[in-house]
Amino acid sequence: MILSVDAMGGDDAPGVVLEGLDRFCRLHRKTRILLHGRPDDIEPFLDRYPEMRGQIEIRPADAVVKSSDKPSQALRRARGTSMWNAVESVKAGEAQAAVSAGNTGALMAISMLVLRKMEGVHRPGMTAIWPTLKGRCVVLDVGANLEADARQLYTYAIMGEAYSRAITGNARPRIGLLNIGAEETKGHEEIRQAADLLRANELDLNYIGFVEGNDISEGAADVIVTDGFTGNVALKTAEGTARLVGGYLRESLTSGPLSKAGAVIASKGLKQLKERMNPSRVNGGVLLGLNGLVVKSHGGTDAEGFETALSLASNLANSQYSDDVRANLSKIAVPDKAETPEAAQ
Amino acid sequence: MILSVDAMGGDDAPGVVLEGLDRFCRLHRKTRILLHGRPDDIEPFLDRYPEMRGQIEIRPADAVVKSSDKPSQALRRARGTSMWNAVESVKAGEAQAAVSAGNTGALMAISMLVLRKMEGVHRPGMTAIWPTLKGRCVVLDVGANLEADARQLYTYAIMGEAYSRAITGNARPRIGLLNIGAEETKGHEEIRQAADLLRANELDLNYIGFVEGNDISEGAADVIVTDGFTGNVALKTAEGTARLVGGYLRESLTSGPLSKAGAVIASKGLKQLKERMNPSRVNGGVLLGLNGLVVKSHGGTDAEGFETALSLASNLANSQYSDDVRANLSKIAVPDKAETPEAAQ
Repeated sequence: MILSVDAMGGDDAPGVVLEGLDRFCRLHRKTRILLHGRPDDIEPFLDRYPEMRGQIEIRPADAVVKSSDKPSQALRRARGTSMWNAVESVKAGEAQAAVSAGNTGALMAISMLVLRKMEGVHRPGMTAIWPTLKGRCVVLDVGANLEADARQLYTYAIMGEAYSRAITGNARPRIGLLNIGAEETKGHEEIRQAADLLRANELDLNYIGFVEGNDISEGAADVIVTDGFTGNVALKTAEGTARLVGGYLRESLTSGPLSKAGAVIASKGLKQLKERMNPSRVNGGVLLGLNGLVVKSHGGTDAEGFETALSLASNLANSQYSDDVRANLSKIAVPDKAETPEAAQ
Repeated sequence: MILSVDAMGGDDAPGVVLEGLDRFCRLHRKTRILLHGRPDDIEPFLDRYPEMRGQIEIRPADAVVKSSDKPSQALRRARGTSMWNAVESVKAGEAQAAVSAGNTGALMAISMLVLRKMEGVHRPGMTAIWPTLKGRCVVLDVGANLEADARQLYTYAIMGEAYSRAITGNARPRIGLLNIGAEETKGHEEIRQAADLLRANELDLNYIGFVEGNDISEGAADVIVTDGFTGNVALKTAEGTARLVGGYLRESLTSGPLSKAGAVIASKGLKQLKERMNPSRVNGGVLLGLNGLVVKSHGGTDAEGFETALSLASNLANSQYSDDVRANLSKIAVPDKAETPEAAQ
């Protein structure tokens, strides 16, 4: 296994990236890393984490995509950046997956340009892994595209299902379409048409019907399919709500001497809670639908979170994900041929 | 002040309704209640809560809208139901606001049919009150309409602003448009056009720009404007997330003897937390944009929640809300006149 890593992406790069790599390499001694970035910035960290030096090959790249760049700006000067080169290594077949904590929009744009979309995919979809009462689920699209028609939602379902299987081992992940009611008559036309496609079920997918916002955290489905606008709002709303409740909890447990004492005594349980709410444990978004794997880590992640993103990339590259998706897309490819390629993106 | 109340709406009607009324009436001895429903079902509760008997006038209505009815079904047999009659009392000028915990879709349909839309309103919007780190905010639309064009979003902003002022006393509530990025170039065309209308600022509204999902709970704005699909998904996602975190907390505090002991000692603080997360404290959605006030209580509310909905109705009826909205809508009425009335709904 060879992973390609952008050393320079993220709020605390390259420090967090290298620390995360060290954690990852301890558990994956046979994995090799192509590390793209400025050698002078990277070397001091290799001195700090000498054990992984043998697994890492530095690929010098002086230019860096700024976190403030818009995708169009970033694309214009993308060639030769550590991010571009990390993705290029996947394209060239040198690495099985790329990982970056850099600018999301730029990473999506570069990945699409370099890796191209899979045959049958109109628009790639960005995933999020979401903690639920029953474990975790996959939500997509969380922002790669503003809108999605019925066919795109259907493609998201196919890709999300294979992705869920790849990262959880669940043979038949349950697929739900995000809507504002469970009744078949509810929702936008695109959603109802996507439901028709999923119910027709040429591909023997495990489609369970419409789900609502509260069903995501309930774990009512393993794959939640929605357009990128709605998915992004839902994801950020959930993050905000978790912070709000965490803030309430903190205030409640510091509201008086008894509460403070109780919190100290219950500190193990509360630490466990903090751990479960830790976004690092579910870090890593994947842009599904490209000819190659690219994992996006949160820009503000810590070393543990970056390690999680690296593990996700490694698991995915080891899985049948790409073959699964290609096989399913090829089965439903006929109707796509009728559409003009220009309309695709 | 006279309120019109549907005694038969909600999962535990009429018991919860009557208990909520009792709580409300203790604090509002001068308010009179027109209580619509089956006298035989209501009377036993008036025996249980005798103090409020003098404030309540039973308006017999034998038919009841079922919670399972679709709006179209409900409308066909709506006349003479307790819900219809509760709204009709507002239309007739007998009451200043109506309150029901019954079927949401039916209540919206009946309210629109009976009360009609305000001049200048294309589609009414349903509100939710959302707890934030700084207090609370208003989100609309949370499901009255699937979609909203720029003009509708603008109208939601006008109505939501007056509503926020009415219930909080804040003279200049900050208005944010829900989007998936803060940059002006982000989002659907309708949202960018709505932003243009708000920035042009004929009405001197306190528009602060785009906000994202996480900004809702942060309290970044007092009024969050969005379409009904997105608003509904966001609201239910937040409810689900709060339950998830609450579930994590319970598990963490019962995970071992020390944690359990700590939880007992910190019980006052934890009870305070539970209280803050209690949905009854923010119960009550309002369908803004009609010629009359109708407050929707959660169907599964408890007596405290129903009391909250009654208080909301009372505060709103006492406020300048309707005059404020009418004044603002009349100022921007000219462009509406050019549109065909048939396109309005």
